[in-house]
Amino acid sequence: ADRAAMSAARERQGQLTKPPGALGLLEDLSVRLAGVFGTPRPHPAGSAVIVAAGDHGVVAEGVSAFPPEVTPAMVANFLAVTPAGPGGAAVNAIARTVGTRVYVADVGVNADLPDHPALVQAKVRRGTRNLRAESALTRDEVTRAVLAGADLARVAVQDGADLIVPGEMGIGNTTPAAAVTARMLGLDARDVTGRGTGVDDATLTHKAGVVTDALARGASSAQDPLGVMADLGGLELAFMLGVMLQAAALRRAVVLDGFVEGSAALVGVALAPNLADYLFPAGVCAERGHAAQLAHLQLTPMFDLGLRLGEGTGGVLAVPLLLSAAATLRDMQTFAEAGVPGSETQDRS
Amino acid sequence: ADRAAMSAARERQGQLTKPPGALGLLEDLSVRLAGVFGTPRPHPAGSAVIVAAGDHGVVAEGVSAFPPEVTPAMVANFLAVTPAGPGGAAVNAIARTVGTRVYVADVGVNADLPDHPALVQAKVRRGTRNLRAESALTRDEVTRAVLAGADLARVAVQDGADLIVPGEMGIGNTTPAAAVTARMLGLDARDVTGRGTGVDDATLTHKAGVVTDALARGASSAQDPLGVMADLGGLELAFMLGVMLQAAALRRAVVLDGFVEGSAALVGVALAPNLADYLFPAGVCAERGHAAQLAHLQLTPMFDLGLRLGEGTGGVLAVPLLLSAAATLRDMQTFAEAGVPGSETQDRS
Repeated sequence: ADRAAMSAARERQGQLTKPPGALGLLEDLSVRLAGVFGTPRPHPAGSAVIVAAGDHGVVAEGVSAFPPEVTPAMVANFLAVTPAGPGGAAVNAIARTVGTRVYVADVGVNADLPDHPALVQAKVRRGTRNLRAESALTRDEVTRAVLAGADLARVAVQDGADLIVPGEMGIGNTTPAAAVTARMLGLDARDVTGRGTGVDDATLTHKAGVVTDALARGASSAQDPLGVMADLGGLELAFMLGVMLQAAALRRAVVLDGFVEGSAALVGVALAPNLADYLFPAGVCAERGHAAQLAHLQLTPMFDLGLRLGEGTGGVLAVPLLLSAAATLRDMQTFAEAGVPGSETQDRS
Repeated sequence: ADRAAMSAARERQGQLTKPPGALGLLEDLSVRLAGVFGTPRPHPAGSAVIVAAGDHGVVAEGVSAFPPEVTPAMVANFLAVTPAGPGGAAVNAIARTVGTRVYVADVGVNADLPDHPALVQAKVRRGTRNLRAESALTRDEVTRAVLAGADLARVAVQDGADLIVPGEMGIGNTTPAAAVTARMLGLDARDVTGRGTGVDDATLTHKAGVVTDALARGASSAQDPLGVMADLGGLELAFMLGVMLQAAALRRAVVLDGFVEGSAALVGVALAPNLADYLFPAGVCAERGHAAQLAHLQLTPMFDLGLRLGEGTGGVLAVPLLLSAAATLRDMQTFAEAGVPGSETQDRS
């Protein structure tokens, strides 16, 4: 990020027609956006959500409340023709409302999906291997998924996206997300394994045991982040990692949705620590383990709506907040420009 | 609110293509919007922020960090011609970003403001009386301000607003807001008096003492809400009360910004308890006493950005969240429509 632009932005924030700090977190966000876009008056406009779909061999262990057939069915839902427009899922409805473009990619669905003009075919394999018993992916498979994500991020940027929301759909994917998070942060499986789409207490305990078993195989270490992604991750996680790295390389802001996105981000910042400058967490995710991710990234989310859906929904909801943060920094008048008297304190200083 | 529409909306929420409850607070908000708009598929579209400006005799007591000259100067700022468009204040920048129309009214600024095509002239008097020593307003003055607010809400609705954000500008107005809140909720002045635009510890203590003195005059009781508004309130508070009551009467949603708006809402629900069905608090406001208001209204805010600016800024930031909540309820496909398998639990039930 551009430290000079951030410094100039911070100084400008103090001159705008409002009490110092009265815009709270929006002020910090605006300064970070100045760093991303390299100007004290950042003007992000377009936004994109890139929803990557993949399946997970670990669903054979019974870790999800939903059957794996939901993954291809939801991809079809993202692309469905509905009376309201394209797409009948939550991310479509929200993206249509806030003006965010939706991209959908198949990077690892365990089904042959029909061709569709709005579906990016980037399938690396039909689902991952069962990470309880063996590494989920090979390094080569991870690389291909990462590069596919980078490709689509480049397309989105060329299409005009300044804010990029990586999103995902994959029944079972909070299990690899928990495993990756546990390994990258050195935490116990129980501290990062949550209810996902809504498993009951017994399944939650079982799921944490599956993650524990995967970690116990000892086939990867946090010092080798791509190795962790191969051993414990997933294709849509690797794809999102590619989206994040490419978006940051192109100096665009990445809006982080929830726990699955956060697990990819942990791998990302381990590979490229500066990536953190480009990450903007949307909201507190109801999934256990998300707070530990944010603490590690040292980033503050914008809202706590109790979301636990994924698809990038939370990230898209945060887009207007980030655009507004940039707009206040960019477009507000200063006290001097507006001829507004300052505070008594400011007058004295 | 329309209970049948809410009941139908709640049933529809359970059939949409997502795990039950995965959209968290957005689901509750969508059901409440169904009640406001009288349909299980609500389609709010337009939004308006109505910024009412007024001054306060109590500033003579030294309760604000800013001089009262800021009030007329900020009204000019709301209307200023800037390179980015009309208005150089935070509310203008945010409203432009999210597509909310800005209305500005002078209901009690202590200055003669020049005519401007976008300024609604509704001045009841030049500032209130000093509420430490005497009632701030007469009942007749309150009535005139309430009716002026109702008038402008009607205009905004006729212009297409479905979501109405009452906003305010008035140096010193967290003092009457604290006094009104203390009286309506039966709380001690110290529990509801905050730093406003940023007063220091000594001024905060002094400010709470001023509120205590105003309450000690004993000239109003919570059983007479308009009497409380006259005794302890302000012209822009009364104006916002009128905006809220008229918006609800026209079956529009009212987005509540912060502490000053909340104090007007307390008077509103005391007059018309059903008003609460139409209120949607935007965010947690950093001003002390806001939490007590929300607890009394039994409403949950959408975010905690540390805002303490007023102007309706938080309310405008919440507009895309409310539009998105409605869009998910309205436009998402059901499991049956999308051909998506349900959860194992749903299959069993």
